[in-house]
Amino acid sequence: MRWSCFFLPTLREVPLEAEIPSHQLLLRAGLARRLAAGLYTFLPAGLRALRKIEAIVREEMDRAGALEVLMPALQPPDLWQRTGRMETLREVMFRLRDRQDREMVLGPTHEEVITDLVAREINSWRQLPRTFYQIQTKFRDEIRPRFGLMRAKEFIMKDAYSFDTDEDGADRSYQAIYAAYERIFRRCGLRVKAVEADTGAMGGKSSHEFMVPAESGEDGIVECDRCSYAANREQAEARPEPTTGPDDTAEPVAIPTPGARTIEQVSSALGVPPGRLVKTLIYLADGRPIAALVPGDRELNEIKLRRAVEAQEIRLADDLTIEQVTGAPVGFAGPIGLSVPIWADVRLRGARGMVVGGNRSDTHIIHVDLDREVPHLRFAELAFARSGDRCPRCAPGRLQESRGIEVGHVFRLGTKYSRALGAEFLDEAGARRPAVMGCYGIGVTRTLQAVIEQHHDEKGILWPASVAPFVAEIVLLNPQNAVAAETANHLYEALRRAGLDPLLDDRDARPGVKFNDADLLGLPYRVNIGDRSLARGVVEIVRRRDGTVVEMPPEQAAAWLADRLRAEIEGGTDGAPLQS
Amino acid sequence: MRWSCFFLPTLREVPLEAEIPSHQLLLRAGLARRLAAGLYTFLPAGLRALRKIEAIVREEMDRAGALEVLMPALQPPDLWQRTGRMETLREVMFRLRDRQDREMVLGPTHEEVITDLVAREINSWRQLPRTFYQIQTKFRDEIRPRFGLMRAKEFIMKDAYSFDTDEDGADRSYQAIYAAYERIFRRCGLRVKAVEADTGAMGGKSSHEFMVPAESGEDGIVECDRCSYAANREQAEARPEPTTGPDDTAEPVAIPTPGARTIEQVSSALGVPPGRLVKTLIYLADGRPIAALVPGDRELNEIKLRRAVEAQEIRLADDLTIEQVTGAPVGFAGPIGLSVPIWADVRLRGARGMVVGGNRSDTHIIHVDLDREVPHLRFAELAFARSGDRCPRCAPGRLQESRGIEVGHVFRLGTKYSRALGAEFLDEAGARRPAVMGCYGIGVTRTLQAVIEQHHDEKGILWPASVAPFVAEIVLLNPQNAVAAETANHLYEALRRAGLDPLLDDRDARPGVKFNDADLLGLPYRVNIGDRSLARGVVEIVRRRDGTVVEMPPEQAAAWLADRLRAEIEGGTDGAPLQS
Repeated sequence: MRWSCFFLPTLREVPLEAEIPSHQLLLRAGLARRLAAGLYTFLPAGLRALRKIEAIVREEMDRAGALEVLMPALQPPDLWQRTGRMETLREVMFRLRDRQDREMVLGPTHEEVITDLVAREINSWRQLPRTFYQIQTKFRDEIRPRFGLMRAKEFIMKDAYSFDTDEDGADRSYQAIYAAYERIFRRCGLRVKAVEADTGAMGGKSSHEFMVPAESGEDGIVECDRCSYAANREQAEARPEPTTGPDDTAEPVAIPTPGARTIEQVSSALGVPPGRLVKTLIYLADGRPIAALVPGDRELNEIKLRRAVEAQEIRLADDLTIEQVTGAPVGFAGPIGLSVPIWADVRLRGARGMVVGGNRSDTHIIHVDLDREVPHLRFAELAFARSGDRCPRCAPGRLQESRGIEVGHVFRLGTKYSRALGAEFLDEAGARRPAVMGCYGIGVTRTLQAVIEQHHDEKGILWPASVAPFVAEIVLLNPQNAVAAETANHLYEALRRAGLDPLLDDRDARPGVKFNDADLLGLPYRVNIGDRSLARGVVEIVRRRDGTVVEMPPEQAAAWLADRLRAEIEGGTDGAPLQS
Repeated sequence: MRWSCFFLPTLREVPLEAEIPSHQLLLRAGLARRLAAGLYTFLPAGLRALRKIEAIVREEMDRAGALEVLMPALQPPDLWQRTGRMETLREVMFRLRDRQDREMVLGPTHEEVITDLVAREINSWRQLPRTFYQIQTKFRDEIRPRFGLMRAKEFIMKDAYSFDTDEDGADRSYQAIYAAYERIFRRCGLRVKAVEADTGAMGGKSSHEFMVPAESGEDGIVECDRCSYAANREQAEARPEPTTGPDDTAEPVAIPTPGARTIEQVSSALGVPPGRLVKTLIYLADGRPIAALVPGDRELNEIKLRRAVEAQEIRLADDLTIEQVTGAPVGFAGPIGLSVPIWADVRLRGARGMVVGGNRSDTHIIHVDLDREVPHLRFAELAFARSGDRCPRCAPGRLQESRGIEVGHVFRLGTKYSRALGAEFLDEAGARRPAVMGCYGIGVTRTLQAVIEQHHDEKGILWPASVAPFVAEIVLLNPQNAVAAETANHLYEALRRAGLDPLLDDRDARPGVKFNDADLLGLPYRVNIGDRSLARGVVEIVRRRDGTVVEMPPEQAAAWLADRLRAEIEGGTDGAPLQS
């Protein structure tokens, strides 16, 4: 592509709307433009990179034996009612009415549609296993769209669904897609970590997320510094270490703590470290009030609480409920004397000499041994794991927290959807059984931006060759020099004949402008065609990632680049520095 | 692809929901399934054909110099308000509200979004011309979705938009896309006709539709039997021939026609041919009543009336308005004595001895010379052209009516959108000017079904090689025969190595089932690997289109097929019958 025929509106300034580097570069390098909150138009260069990612996804899904389909975004609500997700996905699902005033939804995911298809079309074990996938536009009514393509209202997802006759088969399908995902991200030049994750609104048995490590990531990752344990922060467990207070045999005493409601305020008022305080939180579990206790220096993990309580939904109680349950204003709740079920984090088992709320205004109780004062406690792990906690898998390991971008998610679904939608088959013995399912997603547009987030420097993007909008940029420094222009054209055509897609900067602009734009766009290789080097019979090839340079006669450049790029594209690697 | 690993649910019965052959075959050949009215899931074989069409579209758009982008389906309404199309497209545009209760629309087309992008990013004549395109999912709230993919609520469209500095440039861009469309449809194996068409809700100056001739088509086509004139029925003109009544010098006489309201009833009551009657219709043109006259044997064309009246909108008046305007109940309107503006079809100029409504209950007037009795008539062509009319372009030609499927539409838009949305540039003299635009659409999913509509017989589809889901089917008649199975596998792998995608029917099924499915799916070539022919050292290659057959040794089949298919795919032809 010649720049003079292309559309690549680069920006010098960092757009105000963009907070993280990849979002800034997406806009500055002319890859995409914002239409409205959470809605982006892909410009030609951005779309070229997106299509390359899609092609890699397609090749690897095909290689894994999955069959590509394409399902409608617009869907009737009845399938969603049958799985109960009209309710659980209520908040993120766009709904609309057609001219006959029938309700329709825009699918945020496609378990319902594909399972209904399989229910209609597959009847026998002979037709199984099958895995279907699509690369398709999804719509989600995000409460806070942000970070560009990272959290958008409309985005492209590769979603896949496997149907097997039994758990063993489902596990093989899961492993096949898991392996395909590892290949996909590697070929896109992404370093990812697979971590254990919560199944959330998808339901099912277990799941893994593929995370791109990044400070700007919205997800927390917890991993062991010794073994391979890694989990999403919501899911992460830790080997609990008990909260050991001083061996305090004193009797509980209520003492005044006027105005001290938060852990910090109480800790400072009483001169007690937060870890010796008990945080008492009142929740509604499917509408019924319960109390949950965690050490004062820990954060309660609502997903763990919901699982422990075995509730469909939990949420923090409103002030009125808190006052009714505790008999005190908000900020002074404690476990002693409560008549609701009380769940405590395992770290509080046997904790002595603790400080708890007094269930009375401006009052806390000290010298509390929980086991003695609160007889019907139920224990479970309720707190988020954090850095320094002990690994749940290996004895010596300690956990580390970091952040990441979720680019893929694989779920073992079991039979939740096949039962609800009647995706049953006749087995070899003639018995009806529900198919055992898995589902698998890759955020394709998010993956594009994650590549930029993982591959950039202060000047711009550092594209891996496999997904770069173009594999190389030929910079014609002086278009007025006829020999240079001819050399540039020859190289351009030679690369195209080699099946590679070069960008030729043939603009009538100053070299500085061209170099800045080249660094910003960040194609893997740049070929400078300058008057002086050409007079010496060479062109200069610069590797964007590290600025290393080689010179060679222009007639050798195409073959040299083609060899090098092919190796990088096929290997999903960055190649090595150039040596001149 | 091996059938045993694929998903190709063929149907023996014709589904009740499908009225036209291509819709029936879409379902029967396992290409797609209906999710709900106007919403279809593409199954793997259907999607393969669709992707091949998309690839042809993309190649030819790129060749024409257009740049691919991808715009959101979900859009804020403000751009649509600025062009006034929130109102004109009101009925077909899906609207919804997000969780902040902001209104959003699902774009049925993208003039607004792309023009806004150009308004923001292009400022100088140096950045023009540019043509952008996308292959993207569109949503339209069709009043009556039907015929499968032909008229769906969600469908894939290739839409393109050109921006030029002046009319000459816009015309060059228009011609470039027009030529690309001819190549696209030819490469898809479609015979199309380009016809003049109305610009409708798109606005602009002129347009052409690309029509696939088909009896089942929803569009009427009118074309000359001598010259190249062809137009959509709504747009078609005819050289008007005056309505010549008898040279009737009698004075007008009101005569009773009790209960005769329709042309047919009056014609039969008075014994006068319909062509001697005048049909008087009362319309509201932008809310103001007018009368429109056409010969009794002609149908009024509302698009022509709207243009003649220069109104934004016209609609038939309600009964109350008709009674107020004519002073008579509905069915007896006539032009004599009306106080509203009266427009008459040119065919009525100088018409004598006509019969008109009496503007009185159960009354018509005979012996009417329109010129004399209705002094302020305005003439325009208001009636639909029809078979037998004279061609508007050439003297001897006569028009013929037929039907077609609109697969493409190209518009000269002028500056309607660029003015409304501020897509202006600085010209070489430094003056601000609006870009001159064109817009261009191809119904990609509709094109897929049009290919089937144009290429089928009573047994199934007759795919052109360029867009067939697979280029050939290898039918292994007896999978128990190890030699035959090995031969089939060798041929399968050899075709794959040649870059072709064969389907191997390796099912454990009777030959009759396999042959019926092969005819139904209709891949261009079928290779029968049967025990008896193999014993003679040959396989049988059958050309689906005409059933012609050749035999050859199996080791020659791959190269022979590859040569033949490559020629057919590149030429967009059906190839020639086989000669054994």
